[in-house]
Amino acid sequence: MFPKNAWYVACTPDEIDGKPLGRTICNEKIAFYRGEGGRVAAVEDFCPHRGAQLSLGYVCEGKLVCGYHGLQMGCDGKTVSMPLQRVQGFPKIRAYPVVERYGFIWVWPGEAQLADPAKIHPLEWAESPDWAYGGGLYHVQCDYRLMVDNLMDLTHETYVHATSIGQKEIDETPVNTKAEGDHVITSRFMENVMAPPFWRANLRGAGLADDVPVDRWQICHFHAPSHIMIEVGVAHAGHGGYHAPKEHKVSSIVVDFLTPETETSMWYFWGMARNFSAQDTALTAQIREGQGKVFAEDTAVLEAQQRNLSANPGRRLLMLNIDAGGVQSRRIIDRLVAAEQPQKLAA
Amino acid sequence: MFPKNAWYVACTPDEIDGKPLGRTICNEKIAFYRGEGGRVAAVEDFCPHRGAQLSLGYVCEGKLVCGYHGLQMGCDGKTVSMPLQRVQGFPKIRAYPVVERYGFIWVWPGEAQLADPAKIHPLEWAESPDWAYGGGLYHVQCDYRLMVDNLMDLTHETYVHATSIGQKEIDETPVNTKAEGDHVITSRFMENVMAPPFWRANLRGAGLADDVPVDRWQICHFHAPSHIMIEVGVAHAGHGGYHAPKEHKVSSIVVDFLTPETETSMWYFWGMARNFSAQDTALTAQIREGQGKVFAEDTAVLEAQQRNLSANPGRRLLMLNIDAGGVQSRRIIDRLVAAEQPQKLAA
Amino acid sequence: MFPKNAWYVACTPDEIDGKPLGRTICNEKIAFYRGEGGRVAAVEDFCPHRGAQLSLGYVCEGKLVCGYHGLQMGCDGKTVSMPLQRVQGFPKIRAYPVVERYGFIWVWPGEAQLADPAKIHPLEWAESPDWAYGGGLYHVQCDYRLMVDNLMDLTHETYVHATSIGQKEIDETPVNTKAEGDHVITSRFMENVMAPPFWRANLRGAGLADDVPVDRWQICHFHAPSHIMIEVGVAHAGHGGYHAPKEHKVSSIVVDFLTPETETSMWYFWGMARNFSAQDTALTAQIREGQGKVFAEDTAVLEAQQRNLSANPGRRLLMLNIDAGGVQSRRIIDRLVAAEQPQKLAA
Repeated sequence: MFPKNAWYVACTPDEIDGKPLGRTICNEKIAFYRGEGGRVAAVEDFCPHRGAQLSLGYVCEGKLVCGYHGLQMGCDGKTVSMPLQRVQGFPKIRAYPVVERYGFIWVWPGEAQLADPAKIHPLEWAESPDWAYGGGLYHVQCDYRLMVDNLMDLTHETYVHATSIGQKEIDETPVNTKAEGDHVITSRFMENVMAPPFWRANLRGAGLADDVPVDRWQICHFHAPSHIMIEVGVAHAGHGGYHAPKEHKVSSIVVDFLTPETETSMWYFWGMARNFSAQDTALTAQIREGQGKVFAEDTAVLEAQQRNLSANPGRRLLMLNIDAGGVQSRRIIDRLVAAEQPQKLAA
Repeated sequence: MFPKNAWYVACTPDEIDGKPLGRTICNEKIAFYRGEGGRVAAVEDFCPHRGAQLSLGYVCEGKLVCGYHGLQMGCDGKTVSMPLQRVQGFPKIRAYPVVERYGFIWVWPGEAQLADPAKIHPLEWAESPDWAYGGGLYHVQCDYRLMVDNLMDLTHETYVHATSIGQKEIDETPVNTKAEGDHVITSRFMENVMAPPFWRANLRGAGLADDVPVDRWQICHFHAPSHIMIEVGVAHAGHGGYHAPKEHKVSSIVVDFLTPETETSMWYFWGMARNFSAQDTALTAQIREGQGKVFAEDTAVLEAQQRNLSANPGRRLLMLNIDAGGVQSRRIIDRLVAAEQPQKLAA
Repeated sequence: MFPKNAWYVACTPDEIDGKPLGRTICNEKIAFYRGEGGRVAAVEDFCPHRGAQLSLGYVCEGKLVCGYHGLQMGCDGKTVSMPLQRVQGFPKIRAYPVVERYGFIWVWPGEAQLADPAKIHPLEWAESPDWAYGGGLYHVQCDYRLMVDNLMDLTHETYVHATSIGQKEIDETPVNTKAEGDHVITSRFMENVMAPPFWRANLRGAGLADDVPVDRWQICHFHAPSHIMIEVGVAHAGHGGYHAPKEHKVSSIVVDFLTPETETSMWYFWGMARNFSAQDTALTAQIREGQGKVFAEDTAVLEAQQRNLSANPGRRLLMLNIDAGGVQSRRIIDRLVAAEQPQKLAA
């Protein structure tokens, strides 16, 4: 269950570098490619001639050329040409609104006339030289909402990520959740604790002592339809925590774009944006590698959870206080999906 | 189709050594582990919090800890604790009667109040120092009743196991089948034949001549719900066959516990118990390896048979005299299954 | 959708060399083997005793012996014998008309009484010492009619086989299609073009210059139910093209037998027959290897097309002039299938 009238991250630019990419998003099979002038384009991955998969073809002068019989498809879903054929009467295929911004390709799988690029979620860090970003993509066999639950409640770090970012104090510290429109915030503040291995490494990476008590924070932001940004960091204890001056803390933003593929599978674009040692590309690579291992731990848990839920479709789950972030985020999703349904007439 | 009010072999102790085991038995997804005091426990493999797979977690002080958010599950299916939560109101999950005995973990997937450990099938050889046992486990994609048929009619050895235990005299010798309550016996006695390779090796292993005629026997015992013990052996001809004194024969018990996973898949616990050279662990390993190869031949045949039957659901099969062991065993299974159905009121 | 009252290529003789072969053709699971006197036989792959897969057994003195309990099956589907059993009352299984001819095993999966070996499509080249043949078999996950479309319109060579047999002039040259009874012909003639790599190699193989302009032809013949023979060749330009004398041309026949497995999978017997350098077995092997690579390019395109069509079942496709060969061939298939349906009574 997902809203279709929304901007989702579809892919990263390297995935359409020199060749089309076929990817299913919200049950839509889509071919992504660079069209005229290098502008990104997205059309139905279905050749109107005989149903071949357009993304198996190639791009020539901004047209997507079908690899079967050479039909040239335009970015608007209208056939441009085909050898020896008049193509005016060819049926149009769907074209999807698509925008390249912030280092991602964004697609709107719903009604094209509703797509407004101004609604793409703003990412200030993506446009500032003070920040560095590294990330990756996982294909996960679960409903994307299980990942929303996962990321809006970091209690699981103690168990799922015991050797990297988990620590006992996480699940001993209550969370606070609030919703503001299509934005949900779950926050947890731990004071005067020892940093876990991931953060000790980051303290050292920023030239700070790693063997002294710290204040640690986690502030999870859900934005519709399914983008989650988590402010995370540690500051040497007693300097103000989240509000400590820069020389006493290291902090970053865990970036998670959850893009539904089908009802029970998803594309997980994960990464981390940081504003310390931003020019240190070796550090970026090191963080990316560590984070990739951590997030692979989540996918194993969630895929098993999905199998359990699929086998027990009617079963009620608990909604505890730690689940409030996920519960409130799902309410927003429910509302957006309901708004897309055809209106029923009053009796 | 399988009775659920019965003791089945679920696993061997090494499979729950230091970590939980998730296994589906009679369509029930179950987490097996060692609970308090090292006693074996079995609960539904479904965390009551959010449906995570409990067997992916770990055991701490006799509690099964969910690897997602740290919920601690008790052996009775009641949540013991969860960080920062009151758990009294948490829904109970199923706990399954489970017993460790004879070197196996036995589970009762049906109604717990009917489970009586005294009903576990007795295995005298498992408790005697005069006997040695070696075995293994295969996951087979067929209805377990096809394996019942297979083991209650050893005619197939001539064809499926031609190079090890098969010999032409098997299918030239009639069988005798009788049923006593929930026990079916199919027996075959061959006199004055040459032993096949497997038995020649065993004769040598017991210090007996392997190049003289023998009397050979196969006595298959089916016990409900689906345990099959086969007395097999050879004696130098003319010394009384099955009743020959120990110095003239080698004999053993083929041990087969057939545990349904789903309607068309099963866990096959196979092995051999022998009362000669019981201390010879190298011989145990050698027999186990040979038997593993023999039983793998069966699984290939049965999985193809299952595919054929699934593709031809209404088709009638023959029930010949050689099939009597399987036919009578299935009648017992049918009766046990019928007895578990809700009673219909008389009109 | 396929006619069943037709001769299809089932396998090649090497596939039943010394052991039975199990293969599904037109949804029929069939065991092929050499029966009495080495004559090819085909029976249902289902033992009438317990449903075992007969093709997992072996052949003994012309009988197919079930590898489970030794039932001996005759070529007519009647059980010949079984150890210790009277088999007269055993149910008959289906036997399929089957003929070995032209280096292939042909099967008639429909009504046996309609099978006339005289209706097997004649292959003159298969019986002449002036011709050499090499080929292979691919298992393709698509409706065989997508392959009919593919082979009756070679426009795709320009795109799918750009590096071997494709050239731009193909899709710049119109085709001509005509139907005669159960025979459809689509032809294309290109004059005064440079030969693509595959044909340059063949010119050299025939001792002809490869760097001069040629006339090139492609004449696709569809014969019911789904055999496609394509006359292909090049002649040095100005010598009469297709009709040029032998010393100025190289030509061959692309041989494609399309045998349905299920509605969405097929057996693709492909090959090439040539009448130049017929004794050169190294050349045969070289052509076979090249052709195998070319036809693997098709299977990737067609399997993706099948997935697209399966996901869009109601969607209309275009029927352009280049598709006429496939369209007319499908009409013949439709007519044959309709003729097999039970007759409706007039109202």
